[in-house]
Amino acid sequence: MTNRIRLGMVGGGNDAFIGAVHRIAARLDDRYELVAGALSSTPEKARASGAALGLPRVYDDFKQMAIREARRKDGIEAVAIVTPNHMHFAAAREFLKRDIHVICDKPLTSTMADARKLATAVEASNALFVLTHNYTGYPMVRHAREMIAAGDIGKIRVVQVEYPQDWLTTAQDFKQAEWRTDPARSGAGGSTGDIGTHAHNLARFVTGLEVASLAADLDAFVPGRPVDDNGHVMLRFHGGAKGMLWCSQVAPGNENALRIRVYGETGGLEWAQEDPNALWHTPFGEPKRVITRNGAGAGDAAARLSRVPPGHPEGYLEGFANIYSEAADAIVAQRDGQPPASDVTYPTLDDGLRGMHFIDACVRSSARNAAWVTLPD
Amino acid sequence: MTNRIRLGMVGGGNDAFIGAVHRIAARLDDRYELVAGALSSTPEKARASGAALGLPRVYDDFKQMAIREARRKDGIEAVAIVTPNHMHFAAAREFLKRDIHVICDKPLTSTMADARKLATAVEASNALFVLTHNYTGYPMVRHAREMIAAGDIGKIRVVQVEYPQDWLTTAQDFKQAEWRTDPARSGAGGSTGDIGTHAHNLARFVTGLEVASLAADLDAFVPGRPVDDNGHVMLRFHGGAKGMLWCSQVAPGNENALRIRVYGETGGLEWAQEDPNALWHTPFGEPKRVITRNGAGAGDAAARLSRVPPGHPEGYLEGFANIYSEAADAIVAQRDGQPPASDVTYPTLDDGLRGMHFIDACVRSSARNAAWVTLPD
Amino acid sequence: MTNRIRLGMVGGGNDAFIGAVHRIAARLDDRYELVAGALSSTPEKARASGAALGLPRVYDDFKQMAIREARRKDGIEAVAIVTPNHMHFAAAREFLKRDIHVICDKPLTSTMADARKLATAVEASNALFVLTHNYTGYPMVRHAREMIAAGDIGKIRVVQVEYPQDWLTTAQDFKQAEWRTDPARSGAGGSTGDIGTHAHNLARFVTGLEVASLAADLDAFVPGRPVDDNGHVMLRFHGGAKGMLWCSQVAPGNENALRIRVYGETGGLEWAQEDPNALWHTPFGEPKRVITRNGAGAGDAAARLSRVPPGHPEGYLEGFANIYSEAADAIVAQRDGQPPASDVTYPTLDDGLRGMHFIDACVRSSARNAAWVTLPD
Amino acid sequence: MTNRIRLGMVGGGNDAFIGAVHRIAARLDDRYELVAGALSSTPEKARASGAALGLPRVYDDFKQMAIREARRKDGIEAVAIVTPNHMHFAAAREFLKRDIHVICDKPLTSTMADARKLATAVEASNALFVLTHNYTGYPMVRHAREMIAAGDIGKIRVVQVEYPQDWLTTAQDFKQAEWRTDPARSGAGGSTGDIGTHAHNLARFVTGLEVASLAADLDAFVPGRPVDDNGHVMLRFHGGAKGMLWCSQVAPGNENALRIRVYGETGGLEWAQEDPNALWHTPFGEPKRVITRNGAGAGDAAARLSRVPPGHPEGYLEGFANIYSEAADAIVAQRDGQPPASDVTYPTLDDGLRGMHFIDACVRSSARNAAWVTLPD
Repeated sequence: MTNRIRLGMVGGGNDAFIGAVHRIAARLDDRYELVAGALSSTPEKARASGAALGLPRVYDDFKQMAIREARRKDGIEAVAIVTPNHMHFAAAREFLKRDIHVICDKPLTSTMADARKLATAVEASNALFVLTHNYTGYPMVRHAREMIAAGDIGKIRVVQVEYPQDWLTTAQDFKQAEWRTDPARSGAGGSTGDIGTHAHNLARFVTGLEVASLAADLDAFVPGRPVDDNGHVMLRFHGGAKGMLWCSQVAPGNENALRIRVYGETGGLEWAQEDPNALWHTPFGEPKRVITRNGAGAGDAAARLSRVPPGHPEGYLEGFANIYSEAADAIVAQRDGQPPASDVTYPTLDDGLRGMHFIDACVRSSARNAAWVTLPD
Repeated sequence: MTNRIRLGMVGGGNDAFIGAVHRIAARLDDRYELVAGALSSTPEKARASGAALGLPRVYDDFKQMAIREARRKDGIEAVAIVTPNHMHFAAAREFLKRDIHVICDKPLTSTMADARKLATAVEASNALFVLTHNYTGYPMVRHAREMIAAGDIGKIRVVQVEYPQDWLTTAQDFKQAEWRTDPARSGAGGSTGDIGTHAHNLARFVTGLEVASLAADLDAFVPGRPVDDNGHVMLRFHGGAKGMLWCSQVAPGNENALRIRVYGETGGLEWAQEDPNALWHTPFGEPKRVITRNGAGAGDAAARLSRVPPGHPEGYLEGFANIYSEAADAIVAQRDGQPPASDVTYPTLDDGLRGMHFIDACVRSSARNAAWVTLPD
Repeated sequence: MTNRIRLGMVGGGNDAFIGAVHRIAARLDDRYELVAGALSSTPEKARASGAALGLPRVYDDFKQMAIREARRKDGIEAVAIVTPNHMHFAAAREFLKRDIHVICDKPLTSTMADARKLATAVEASNALFVLTHNYTGYPMVRHAREMIAAGDIGKIRVVQVEYPQDWLTTAQDFKQAEWRTDPARSGAGGSTGDIGTHAHNLARFVTGLEVASLAADLDAFVPGRPVDDNGHVMLRFHGGAKGMLWCSQVAPGNENALRIRVYGETGGLEWAQEDPNALWHTPFGEPKRVITRNGAGAGDAAARLSRVPPGHPEGYLEGFANIYSEAADAIVAQRDGQPPASDVTYPTLDDGLRGMHFIDACVRSSARNAAWVTLPD
Repeated sequence: MTNRIRLGMVGGGNDAFIGAVHRIAARLDDRYELVAGALSSTPEKARASGAALGLPRVYDDFKQMAIREARRKDGIEAVAIVTPNHMHFAAAREFLKRDIHVICDKPLTSTMADARKLATAVEASNALFVLTHNYTGYPMVRHAREMIAAGDIGKIRVVQVEYPQDWLTTAQDFKQAEWRTDPARSGAGGSTGDIGTHAHNLARFVTGLEVASLAADLDAFVPGRPVDDNGHVMLRFHGGAKGMLWCSQVAPGNENALRIRVYGETGGLEWAQEDPNALWHTPFGEPKRVITRNGAGAGDAAARLSRVPPGHPEGYLEGFANIYSEAADAIVAQRDGQPPASDVTYPTLDDGLRGMHFIDACVRSSARNAAWVTLPD
């Protein structure tokens, strides 16, 4: 298994949720071997976490890791950055400048300023930059995108996308909640940044449309919360389609209920993250049907990213793993001096920048009484 | 069965959908006997339709009917008005001035001016005015309202209400579609008036909250359509709750998909018109549960309006009939010189006026680039 | 409305569930007028119930009613028999012999002996006999039958039908439970008779196949219950199809969960009574689709029995009313000396006899350790 | 990562479905490292498949592998056997006799004779024997088992378990279909062996009850198929509960629709493999509720086997991986000379033997016209 990509990780220490997810995602298809880590900004914790994982090389901080790994012949080829948002840029920069590929959690950064600097760093690097907007890795999301691109529902008129959760319904002080509700670490957006960006990215990915402008009404319903925990957003897409986006962390009964519905001139598509193996399609004037992952009617774009037959549910980790495997394809192609195959698809810096503009526009619009804010092309 | 309320009907000739619905609704619980009608503005059609129904007394026009019925000892006690919207006021006025109860389809009228005149006519009359916002007749909608009033989900934060359909996805020229897309007959709102008002009324009914202001982005996606066929609306309620309302007639795969979700500080409720016997309740921190009509956990407000045990689905017609039966209770109480029982609940003039303000606000907001428009208290 | 069929009722006094259902079903489409009744075998209760309903003619017993109504020029043309099972035959006989049409609740009778005598009485009468196996009145059940008859799923291989409820999970002493668990009044079958017959009839109706033989394992799980409350039945149909039938009154979480699934050589169909407006169809090798009542792909057989557009749910009462309206079509045709239209379909004596044989076979098979029992052709 | 268990694999060459599943399952939680394989009985294919996977040690046949690995200091500690059924015994024997742990696909063997010999081999070995009845690895299956063991639904009365698929609706000649319908390789049971055993095992696992006797009616609906493709089975459990089991490979519209419903004296539980993160619980007399993996109300047994928060669906591969991880816990405990923790649970030889008796009883019962056949205690 010598072809596995040597991977490092920044952040993702013992009590971090998303770090463990990234590790499983990297491992699932056997394309990576995690060999180094700076798993915490607290050296003791970094070491303990690294030891717990049996990592061959454990570092106290990411800069040290970048420097030393870059010098090794068998140093890491890629690094996963799974810290809180405000550390994404600083970490990514160190690896990018050494041409180590970066797989970075979303949103891109905590500030627009950092985002711009990161963009510069990516452009200056020979390394790839992959953003884990993991929900685009679901096979039936890929199939929806293919169908729309093929014109199967006609010109798009309406996009309804929502991402409600309930875990922040009351004030919380555990780690996951704590940094996500601190603007210094998560950025100016609360729910908009943490999950609204996923909804925004999913809408863009599936429809192929970009948001031209938006009007947002954000709230922090839990007293004392310094960032939004609920966002209502009206969208206008280039080309005339309209949309609504709802993100919430205070909607009891919603665990992780990302959902998208797209309506075109000749049909409709509906997909829900909590039932991800099904894509509902209604050709206007015909019965609604359910296309299942790897089942009848699901095409190549979904099949490429499926591991098991229909009826054997694949889930969140498999979808996340698909982003890692797409990245692996691209990394291996670059190893070989080749461009990646044309169907290799993963979220990029551009997606991240657009997500940052989405957050920024939401916050600015809401501050101006939900006035329309134009997003950059 | 001499106690049946003698009922007349204006509109609802042979090819009208909603007239037949009103007739079944009136008949279902055996509280009314339809004895007179002016079923069309075309005399020949009025006569043919009346004969087809075996109506004892058929009139060429509603004014003639109002005059003659008012003179009869056995004249109608109530009239159902099921014409296109622009005729509601003129018809209602004739019956109200003769103290004949009016059961009127929604929206209230086609113009604000008519709505105000109708309000004056209702106030001047001894008769009752009932507006058939039929979706409030569903037992589990009643139960949701009871739960919220009882504080079962705490102070409300977020309301998500939507009413998508797909029947106007393409240009249509049959009668139902034709007048509903003609502003002279339906009013300035298209989807906002025809179905948005139902969504607005349902949100108000269930939550007990009134909309303070709204921002609307309306579209007519079908080329040449003079009224909106899709509306995106952000809502701000008195007391601080926020909401989103989506109405659409161009969303393929949605037949009549009215749905409401309400989230409070301690729980959430979800109800969908196409699965009306179920109310989903999540007390925050506990599993989601489904309360069924007449089933375990459903209270008196729902049981009053149920006919059959749980698992025996009641539907649209039963919900509509509940409005008629509530009206019958009120009419019979008035016959007896009594106030209706305290739990008798039906949509009133006030609901209708608020619906008209909703339409008006949507249209004005959209014309001003979705600026916030304040609704009257 | 002089064309309404004059209807009488036997049984269905104040506290009876099914009597009220029959009255609504008769009224829904305005084809009947209830004018006479012997609503209880207790004269005082019969009178009180008749008065409460405002019945023009109230009788102390059904025989008296049959005699007197037969003599009246405006006497009843049809009678609904909604008593406990053991009284079906005696009541039906009196009306049949006077050529008054009988609309009788199921199962046919409480004993095979009564069933045979009833068959003789029906054959000797000019009147129609209609059995309210109401679940065959659902439009999408009709559509399923049409599809199978048209060969849409190919030759049938497997039928899965089940009818679980939970209302008898514990010992109950209220009236509905009490007579249904008394073999003297309900017959030898408990759940098999009360609901198993519906499942059996639905399977026959939808598939067009008759059961050749069955093996049944029946239980009375509630201590002291003298009839079965759970039945497991394996079916062999003429022509080679196989089936399983489960009926239960002790399955917590099942309100009225009648469901049928039919699998043929080229496709499958699935329908559930608690979601009756949907029929799920899978052409083998294609995505599963949902055909909705009056929606795209639903044919004439369903449309004939629908009142409102798709997305406006019709339910149990509408399905029940369809049986009454089909009967009305047949009665009116007979009035006019005509045969009913070819598409008029309702459950008949033959269905009732087959249901009795089903109960009998289940009970005998179970008594013989689930040995196969052959049913008469 | 030096603690990973060194794993070998027998079978699972390039075009095998289940081999790839086992490899992912072993890898998911990073507890195993696949280091050796005899991936096909065809040497060329074994070598090509091993090379494709980058296996350090590739063998032409499993006996050779067992011998050589047993001699290595760094030889495999466990082997996954993923061949067609008829080879399970011969392969397992070689490793068991060398005290290499065996993780074997189900059913246990293709014949009862082999099963008995395998039992002897297991008893004689110091190694563990793990059977991948993977569906018992789903967290909500574990939770159901816990609830029933805790008495949450009372004494069990009725078990409904089914496992329909549709992939063999027509004659198929691809590899997966081919050996599964060849009695020499799959055993006497077709659908009963391939999927009926899963259903049987799931029922036993969840309820804690053993089948005392069964009556089976098996069919091979596809002409020329030498083994059953549809089975109807009535079950009698020790202690008085009754059940029905349906397995089918010819039910169009069912992809992999394993489902179990258990009803006790005080409640009901329902779980479906295609929606595996949800367990539906109805305490009799209360609303039905949905307990979600890692969500409110899900207990320790489910949480142990969960990786991500509720709403982030885990699926088939995660459930399969749970079996591997439980096995890993047991293997590591044995390494350390300790018994495994008390909550470590995986399917064993006993489960496999009972599955073989289930197949045997089904086949014998069906051959005797569905007579009752007693299963060994």
